[in-house]
Amino acid sequence: MITLYYEQGTCALASHIALEEAGAEYELKRVDFAKNEQRHERYLAINPKGRVPAMVTPRGTLTETPAMLAFIAQSFPKAHLAPLDDPFAFAELQAFNSYLCSTLHVAHAHRMRGYRWADEPEAIRAMQRKVPDSVGACWDLVERRMFKGPWVMGEAYTIADPYVFTLAQWIEDDGVDSARFPKIADHRRRMAERATVKRAMAAEQ
Amino acid sequence: MITLYYEQGTCALASHIALEEAGAEYELKRVDFAKNEQRHERYLAINPKGRVPAMVTPRGTLTETPAMLAFIAQSFPKAHLAPLDDPFAFAELQAFNSYLCSTLHVAHAHRMRGYRWADEPEAIRAMQRKVPDSVGACWDLVERRMFKGPWVMGEAYTIADPYVFTLAQWIEDDGVDSARFPKIADHRRRMAERATVKRAMAAEQ
Repeated sequence: MITLYYEQGTCALASHIALEEAGAEYELKRVDFAKNEQRHERYLAINPKGRVPAMVTPRGTLTETPAMLAFIAQSFPKAHLAPLDDPFAFAELQAFNSYLCSTLHVAHAHRMRGYRWADEPEAIRAMQRKVPDSVGACWDLVERRMFKGPWVMGEAYTIADPYVFTLAQWIEDDGVDSARFPKIADHRRRMAERATVKRAMAAEQ
Repeated sequence: MITLYYEQGTCALASHIALEEAGAEYELKRVDFAKNEQRHERYLAINPKGRVPAMVTPRGTLTETPAMLAFIAQSFPKAHLAPLDDPFAFAELQAFNSYLCSTLHVAHAHRMRGYRWADEPEAIRAMQRKVPDSVGACWDLVERRMFKGPWVMGEAYTIADPYVFTLAQWIEDDGVDSARFPKIADHRRRMAERATVKRAMAAEQ
């Protein structure tokens, strides 16, 4: 059994959808950010980083979305969520997901978590003002250069699809005009129609 | 044949050392940041992100250090650079490397690349002032909770070792007292003695 620690509106949704796609048995546990539960001792004992997602497995706890997604794909090979027998194609997929976590998600985080990188309120406001530019540039690159179509990595649905879908939920709140990204918009529509995605999103409400 | 695009003093060193450990045939091409070559059309045709590292392989180009390191480990299995037959252990390794790229390296980048996340010079200076704190907190977590010893992931040397070694080169310049991290300091000493590391560092001079 797998336990996924999540919070609504976070990147945990990507792993949640992937668990649905894999047909995994799992349970969900919400970490209430409004109550600052991610910093409570009880949660820090599970994930000392004090963030979500975290995934408790019979072998131990995993964190970091790209690693969790790859673990789900490798643990449930029949779901065909990654090109497991092709190191180059697998690396392309991991490079895509690594870009999402280290560049796109990081650019987005400067809107609500600027305190991680500066103390002064004016500097934090300056970061917030830049988010539409910096996040928009990331989505431009995804739309124009990285998204292969019809799925993120091409013909096959992979673990990159729920990850892109999850981060795309934030485009409008980041002050970016989603009309600039027709491939991403079409992908969001198709993803939202999947039963797995509907179940995951309903469960997080 | 593999071609690794690098610049001195960047995280490209991690993949460079891994190629040495793997016994791979490869060539190095320097991207001169002082000449802004990473933004030249010729390089953007190789890596539209305008950053290093990039690794050109017979199958195509890879970017993003965690993906490149995993590709090297999977492509040269006899070098035993990752637990390739154990999805959980592989995910733990990938989670470690993902933390380095998305949290530790990002915290560090606020010292010299603050313009990515704010426009105002005062905000950029505010980010620089926070780097000793934010980078120091990351290394604290690595030292106290994540580093297993004697190598990063435990008994076996893996692709996490050159990555930690590479980022640890920046500790002092980030204004962090390296004496706080005895395990990392000992790891740096042992890494610096490896012939593979010596060759890679000499080749980048």
